[in-house]
Formats: sequence, C-alpha cells, structure tokens
Amino acid sequence: MGSLHSFTFGLKFSIIRKNSMFHYICQQATWFLFFIFFWRLSYGGKVLVIPLDGSHWLSIQPVMERLQHRGHQVVAVVPDVNLLMKPSDHYIVKTFAVSYSKEYLTTEFQKLGYKSFVHQPFLERITETFAKIRNITTFFLDNCKQLLYNKDLITYLQDSKFNVVVMDPVSPCGQIVAEYLSIPSLFYSRGIPCGLDSEGTMCPNPLSYVPKFYTGNTDHMTFNQRVNNFLLGSFQLMVCYFVYSPFEVLIKEFLHRDMTVLELYSQASIWLLRYDFVFEYPRPIMPNMIFIGGINCAKDNPLTQEFESILEKSGKDGVVVFSLGSMVSEIQNKKAMEIAEGLGTVPQTVLWRYTGEAPINLANNTKLFNWLPQNDLLAHPKTRAFITHAGSHGIYEGICHGVPMVLIPLFGDQADNAVRIVSRGAGIKLDAVKMTSKDLSNALRTVIYDKRYKENIQRLSSLHLDRPVEPLDLAVHWVEFVMKHKGAAHLRPAAHDLNWIQYYSIDVIVLLLAATFLFLFISLKGCLFCCKKCFCKNARLSKRSKSKSQ
Amino acid sequence: MGSLHSFTFGLKFSIIRKNSMFHYICQQATWFLFFIFFWRLSYGGKVLVIPLDGSHWLSIQPVMERLQHRGHQVVAVVPDVNLLMKPSDHYIVKTFAVSYSKEYLTTEFQKLGYKSFVHQPFLERITETFAKIRNITTFFLDNCKQLLYNKDLITYLQDSKFNVVVMDPVSPCGQIVAEYLSIPSLFYSRGIPCGLDSEGTMCPNPLSYVPKFYTGNTDHMTFNQRVNNFLLGSFQLMVCYFVYSPFEVLIKEFLHRDMTVLELYSQASIWLLRYDFVFEYPRPIMPNMIFIGGINCAKDNPLTQEFESILEKSGKDGVVVFSLGSMVSEIQNKKAMEIAEGLGTVPQTVLWRYTGEAPINLANNTKLFNWLPQNDLLAHPKTRAFITHAGSHGIYEGICHGVPMVLIPLFGDQADNAVRIVSRGAGIKLDAVKMTSKDLSNALRTVIYDKRYKENIQRLSSLHLDRPVEPLDLAVHWVEFVMKHKGAAHLRPAAHDLNWIQYYSIDVIVLLLAATFLFLFISLKGCLFCCKKCFCKNARLSKRSKSKSQ
Repeated sequence: MGSLHSFTFGLKFSIIRKNSMFHYICQQATWFLFFIFFWRLSYGGKVLVIPLDGSHWLSIQPVMERLQHRGHQVVAVVPDVNLLMKPSDHYIVKTFAVSYSKEYLTTEFQKLGYKSFVHQPFLERITETFAKIRNITTFFLDNCKQLLYNKDLITYLQDSKFNVVVMDPVSPCGQIVAEYLSIPSLFYSRGIPCGLDSEGTMCPNPLSYVPKFYTGNTDHMTFNQRVNNFLLGSFQLMVCYFVYSPFEVLIKEFLHRDMTVLELYSQASIWLLRYDFVFEYPRPIMPNMIFIGGINCAKDNPLTQEFESILEKSGKDGVVVFSLGSMVSEIQNKKAMEIAEGLGTVPQTVLWRYTGEAPINLANNTKLFNWLPQNDLLAHPKTRAFITHAGSHGIYEGICHGVPMVLIPLFGDQADNAVRIVSRGAGIKLDAVKMTSKDLSNALRTVIYDKRYKENIQRLSSLHLDRPVEPLDLAVHWVEFVMKHKGAAHLRPAAHDLNWIQYYSIDVIVLLLAATFLFLFISLKGCLFCCKKCFCKNARLSKRSKSKSQ
Repeated sequence: MGSLHSFTFGLKFSIIRKNSMFHYICQQATWFLFFIFFWRLSYGGKVLVIPLDGSHWLSIQPVMERLQHRGHQVVAVVPDVNLLMKPSDHYIVKTFAVSYSKEYLTTEFQKLGYKSFVHQPFLERITETFAKIRNITTFFLDNCKQLLYNKDLITYLQDSKFNVVVMDPVSPCGQIVAEYLSIPSLFYSRGIPCGLDSEGTMCPNPLSYVPKFYTGNTDHMTFNQRVNNFLLGSFQLMVCYFVYSPFEVLIKEFLHRDMTVLELYSQASIWLLRYDFVFEYPRPIMPNMIFIGGINCAKDNPLTQEFESILEKSGKDGVVVFSLGSMVSEIQNKKAMEIAEGLGTVPQTVLWRYTGEAPINLANNTKLFNWLPQNDLLAHPKTRAFITHAGSHGIYEGICHGVPMVLIPLFGDQADNAVRIVSRGAGIKLDAVKMTSKDLSNALRTVIYDKRYKENIQRLSSLHLDRPVEPLDLAVHWVEFVMKHKGAAHLRPAAHDLNWIQYYSIDVIVLLLAATFLFLFISLKGCLFCCKKCFCKNARLSKRSKSKSQ
C-alpha cells in the first residue's frame, strides 16, 4: 500500500504539478485506487472450489469468474488429467495427480456416445448399468483418495485459510475436505440422481407426485406409474448406499471420525440448485435450497463474423442448432448418415457440432463445426429450433431464448429432462436408437412450423426470465453470505437431529394407539364388570324372590 | 395524450424558441413525459386489495403504496366500521356497510387487552377460547356476507376489470371474490393459526419438529412436547373445520359451486408470507411461498423534534421503547401501576405507548404517549431495549434494528413468537398475569446489561438484513408477476390433484404388501407341497422297503 501511495502522490507532485485539471483527475484517481485496494482487502475472501469435469465444470465457471470480479481469490482443485478444466485468469488451478491417462478418459466418453445409439437387450443394459455405476464409484473414490493423500496439496489447502468451499456433491470429496479444514460449504448441483439430495437436506419427497429420475414419469402419474415411482424411489436409495458407502471408510481413515455419507451431506450450509420450476415440477423444498436454474445462459456474447454471416445468409428460414453436448461430439457413421439425411430435408441451415468424419450424404444446408457458441446462437432471432441431447444446461439455454427443441436423450438424467419439456408442449422427444431420418425430419418440421411449440417455449421463457434477481447474482450472494456468517446455521432444520422413528412420529403414534387401546380395554372391562354386577344382583334378587314365592 | 403533446410542443415553439439550451431540455423533457405516460399506460394494472383490520392492515399498506408508485391503481375494500383502515392518496378505499358500531369494535379490543392481564381458571379459559373462536367466525362470516351481497360494490368490482386480488387469508372472503371475478390472487399472511396454510399449499408439515401454534414448543422438542404437538396439530385441523366450514354454505350460495374451503385456498397463485428463518424455525416450504418477513421495517423516517430531544436528553443510558401493539393501548390501573414501578427502577428513559389514565406512581424516567413511531425509535442508536407484546410486526422491527426484547405476550400467536426470540437468546419472556414490578425490572436490566442479548439480536439482525432483494421489492415483484402472467400455474404442485390415499401412496403400499404376502404365501405353499411330495415319496419308499424286508 505504501508503494502505491508514494507512487501516485509522487506522480502528482512531480510531473503534473502545473496542470490543475489533470492534477485534480489524478487526485481523484488516487482515492479511487485506495478505495478499490481497501475494498479488496476488507471484502476479498478465499474461495475453494472442488468441481467435477464436463458440463458440471462449465456451469460452475461463471460463478468462479464473478467471485473473482468481486475481489475474492478463487482456487479450483482439479485432477491433472481432465477434459475441460482449463486454467484461466479468473482463478488459480491446483492439480492433483491421478492414475488414468487422458486417452483413457477421452475413449470412455467416446464409448458413451457411441453406445447411446446402439440397441442393447434389456438384461445386457441392466448389467451394463450396474457395471457403469461400479466404475463411476471407483473413479470418484480413486480421485478422492488421490486428492486427500496428496500431502503437498493438503498442506497448501490448510495454509491457505479458505473461508468457504463450493463443491459438486455428485462426489462427496469436497465435503470431506471442508470437514478437514473446518470451513462451511455450498453444494452446487442439479440434484443427486439417487435421491441423496433429498435425504441430505431432510426435504420431504412424496413419491406420489415427485417423479424419480430414470422413470420417465411426470408429476401426474397413473396408478402403474406411481407403483413404478415408488419401487424405483426405494431402489435408488439402495443404489445410493452401494455408490457412497465406500466413502465412509475413507472418511474414517482421513477424518478419524465415524460419519455416514448422509451425515456428511447434511453439513452443507447451502444447496445452490440449478432448478427452475418452469422446467422442474413443483415439489416441497427446504429453506437452504437456493434456485439458480438458467445461470448458464445469463451472458450472450456477440457471434463471430463466420457465424454472423451464416445466420445472415440463412434468410427467412433461419437456422437450426444441433449439439449432443460437451461430451459427445461423434457417433457411428451409419447413424450420422441417417441424421444427415433427416437434416437435409428442412429448408433451414443446420449448424451441427460434430467432430467425427463428415457423413457422405451431408446436405448443402448442413454445416459441421468442432465447436458451437451454443448459447449465443440460441439467443439469435434467426434460430428456429434446437436439436439437443437434453442435458439440463442446453435445455435451460433453449428456455432462456425461447427456442423449441427436438430432444434426443442419450444417458443419465437426459431422458427425464426430455419428458419435462415434452410435457410442457415445448419439444418433441426422439429415441436415439430407433429414430429414422424421417422421424427427425418430421419432428424438426413440427417444432418449427406448428406455432404451439414456439408459443409454449416462449411462455416458459417469459416466466423463467421474470425474476427478482438474476441466478448468477443469487449464487454469488449466497457464497458471500456463507463466507461472512461462517455458514447458514439458521437455515438448518431440526429434522437432522431426529432419527427416523422420531421424524415420522412413530413413537408418538404407538404411544397414542396404546393409550387408546388401553382406554378402550379398561372401559370395556369396566362396562363388563358393571353389567356382571348388575346382572348378578338381578339374578340373586330373582332367585331370592323365586325361593320366597316357593 | 394529444393535449399533453400539443401543450409541450406549443410551449417549445412559442416561448423558448430562441434559447437553444432550454429548447433542448424541453425537448428531452417532452420525450421523458411521453415515456412516463406510455409506461404508466402500458404497465399500470388494477390491484384489488381485501385486507383485515389492525396490524394486518398496517403491514399490507407499504405494498399498496409501492404498487401505486409503480403506476398501478390500487383499490382496497374495507368495512365502513374499522379501527385503522383510513383512506390515503395511495389507494382508493371502497367500503361496505356492516352491522356493528365503532363503539362495539373498540370495546371488544379494549376487553381483549384488559383480560390478558387477569388470571383465569383453566376451564374458564378453554370455554372463553371456544366462545372467542365462535365470535370471530361469526364476525368474519357476517362481514363477508355484507361484502358479497352489497350489489353496488360487486357491480363496481365486476366493471373495474381488476388484474389481481391481494388478500388476507385469515378470512377466505377475498378468495371468494377472486373466484367470482375469475382473477388470480395472492395471499398476504403470516400463516393461518389452525394450519390451513400448510393444507392449502400441500406443504409437508412434520409434527416432529415443526412446532404448532399455541403449544409454546420450539423446533427441538422432548418426547412429551412431541406428543403435545401431535395432539394439538390434529386438534387444530378440527378447529379449522369448525371455523371455516360455515363459509362453504356461502361459497355455494354466492358462487353456485360445491367447493370446500381447502379447495378455495388451494387456488392462491402465491403466498406472500411474512416469514424469515432468523425468526421462524426452518421447515419444508413450497415453491409458491415467497418470504417477505421484515417488510414492515424497511423504511425509517426521521423522528420529530419532540422525540429527538427526548432521545438526546437520555444521555449514555439511552431509552427503552414500550408498546403492547396497535390494538392494546390501556390496561387495568393496578397492573399499570406495577409496570410503572418496574420501569422506574432503570436508568433509561422509557417511552410507553399508553392511552389509559397515567398511573400515580409513574416515575420521572417514564413518558406516556398516545402513539409511538415504533420502527423509527427502534432504529435509533440510543434505544437499548424494547418491551413488546411479541406481535410479529414488532418483533421484526426489533430484529431489523438489533434491539433486545422483553416480551409480554397477550393473545394469539404472541406466546409462540416470544418463545422463538427467547430460544435465540435475544429476549426474556414474562407472564402478563404473574409478572411483578421486580420481574420486569430484572428482565429489562438483564437484556440491557448482559451483552449476550445484544450480541444475539445483532447476529439475527445481520443475518436478516443480508438478503439479495428487499422484502418490499420481492412482494411487489410477485404481485406484478401474477398480474402479467395471469397467475403462477407453473408453481402449483400436482399434489392438489391427488386424494389423501394417493398422496400418501397408501394404495401403492397396500398393493405391494398384498403382492409380497401373496408371493410369500405361494412360495410357502409351494415349499410345503414339495416337502409333502418329498416326504410322502420317502415314506412310501421306506414303507415299501419295510414290507419287502418283512
């Protein structure tokens, strides 16, 4: 501070003494610099981010950037082998070594894309799903071990005196670090598929109208769907145990504490959920859940000359944006040709994010790109439709900009996301395996030319954008809130301190039932006793009177 | 618009032609006026407010004023005999004739104040509570009939083409009007004591940690408290039926529809709840609940010369603010003397809102006022403590300005409010009937001189005020949202379309249990059959071998 002070004052009194206007400006600038400097000193906190790769990383980036703009130091801890987690001027990246190679990671995701378009018999699909769950568990667990047992990194984290951890709760690793460093945490998520988010927040989750992931149900279910939702809901909690219980050993090893993963998750101060009820179905929530759905489409950047020129040339027909997400950029050639054929039938220009070999039947209206500025293209008034894999980020971008969608879900929560948009009348869902070129062409024409799709998505867009505070501002507010108040204990429900018998008042109900039965029993016995006494007396009296008469 | 245009343009070209700077300013002003005029034309909606009297009215007033400032026309429908509902420049007041007199109303509230300080035996209290509930029901029902069957008023409401109804849901009358006019509604409330708010929103309400009104429980209950909470929770729903079922006849008469009060309440688009979780205990909520706790202490006005001078003269000891709310301004002289004695023992100057005869033992440090600018006084740094009846408005003002409290609850939800503040270590609760002058003096000294009380209330204040958007802005945003989108159907949970058997998945559980038992039964039968076959075969074989050996 001293050097800054002497520099600006020196400047003022040496070079610019004679120019009074300039002198005045410099004087003001000096105070401004002081103000900024002190503001940063007094306000700036230290934020540790423990994110996941892929679209999860892309969605947390704007928050990290905004936090840095507001004077905080942001440090992201990421594996040294990753897909998208690149360094930036906005945050410090600290890496930890992992045991797999970049090739392995890329190939795994490529396989995921290829397999989504291939038919698999039911049993094979089930077996593969279980194998996938086991692989993911091992992957997260190994990654977490590599982070926690990286002595240099842990020492650095301890010495850095962070104020808060912002983490992706799909892996509990970030919360183990938060517990180790004794600092509060915020979970940044769209929910945990097996339902650990509801359990971790003690949020009621009525299975009668809250559809579980992977069921394809909406919030209005038939009896059969409710049975299916009930069974899958109960089954998913078992899957949760299967996926997360190995972490309990790690918790004991690293934190020297007996703690279940559920207890670990219940420590989060705030859940920043990428939810909005134009997309999600209304359901019970908790006070420490903050909804920031649509955070990823806040900022539209101008398009490059190349894209501007394509959009301009597309004329009154406009363009269609087509992307299968950040993780799937190529598919089997046979399927690519079928898709290319479908795309060739519409008058719109199609911008397709595709890194594979160009299909030989690619029509003139279809242009391939290694990368698309998806959100900026969707924001353009010439965009008529969006073909998407139904990832939540893409869908929010479609909603933000009011673009009707053709949804080709591939894996994870995508099928459920697609159902949500279809149930709102804002898109058409296609089956990645079964769809033909004609199906794609028909779906595309329908969402473009049947006005109801555009009207419905514009209605959703208008509801979504009519909000008192922008999701990015909201997210940053709550990160700063947790830093300033060292958590948000006033939002933690007392339900965390009850066991399930107490939570559901089972002990109270048993007591009241027992008391009622006891009361009824005593009343009955009392009545019987009285009746007996009464009858006996009558009997004795009648006997006596009989004997007298005899 | 034409006249405005010709006036400003006429002005521009006649008087100020030669002065170019002034000309320019006028030109800009013209456009600005046009903008404001069109903005008001395009934006201004029509808001119908159906409020209740007393503190409920005081709390809804800022919203009405802000809506008028934002260009909306606000019309409040109130009974012609009322206590506080005065006309204003900010809204139009339409009255309907009622059958009681101003004297009756004032006397009823005076009685309420007097009785709160008198000991009543348990049975008498219970009988009187039931009588009170019956009176209130009759009062609301009669008022509602007078409104609905006032032909001129109803014709005016129909002709006015309102966009939205903002109403107090303690009486369902506003929603009957909303249904009749087919316009969306917002409920402005702090909750309905008998739990109809939870039922009307389909909000889960676990009785194991959500304390019911009138129990005096916190969110951490012993087993006995949980039993008491469970019983009272169930009992309150019966009270709800008792209080609100007479309205169902009125609904049928007026709307010509069979509709329960619960169905009527479930039609609300948004519930604007005067809640904040520094005061309320964290509990499940629903997406159409918007929390605007502390809305009444947003604006601090400067104090008058009289109050400024008293505060100035109070020196380093400062002042104590004492009010029993807008409805209770005098009590029995004997009790007033006891209170006056207690107040005289502290070095602070006490500002007491009291309209009764001044107690003869009133100390020099105590000053009586017919009315106090409570919020503005609490906002003053010289205010050391707040003696309050623990109404939610006063408590929020105390929290906003970080003033520790002595709580003397009188009736309604006040005892529960007091428990909340005591459980946060920010105040001391006294029993209005039993308290002595010494109790009051001790409590006052403790909250002023034991630093923990000040620290705790300041912590609550700091949490409460650290919010991304001000409660008044939030309330106005949602009123405008409902006007613009003609409701908030996207926030309505599908739970409203289920009966209770479906909601609790009882039909699903029964089916699954039946299927399990059937499976077990068939398996058992199968096993028994196999065993029998097996044993019979063995028996036959052994018999045969025996006969052969013989």
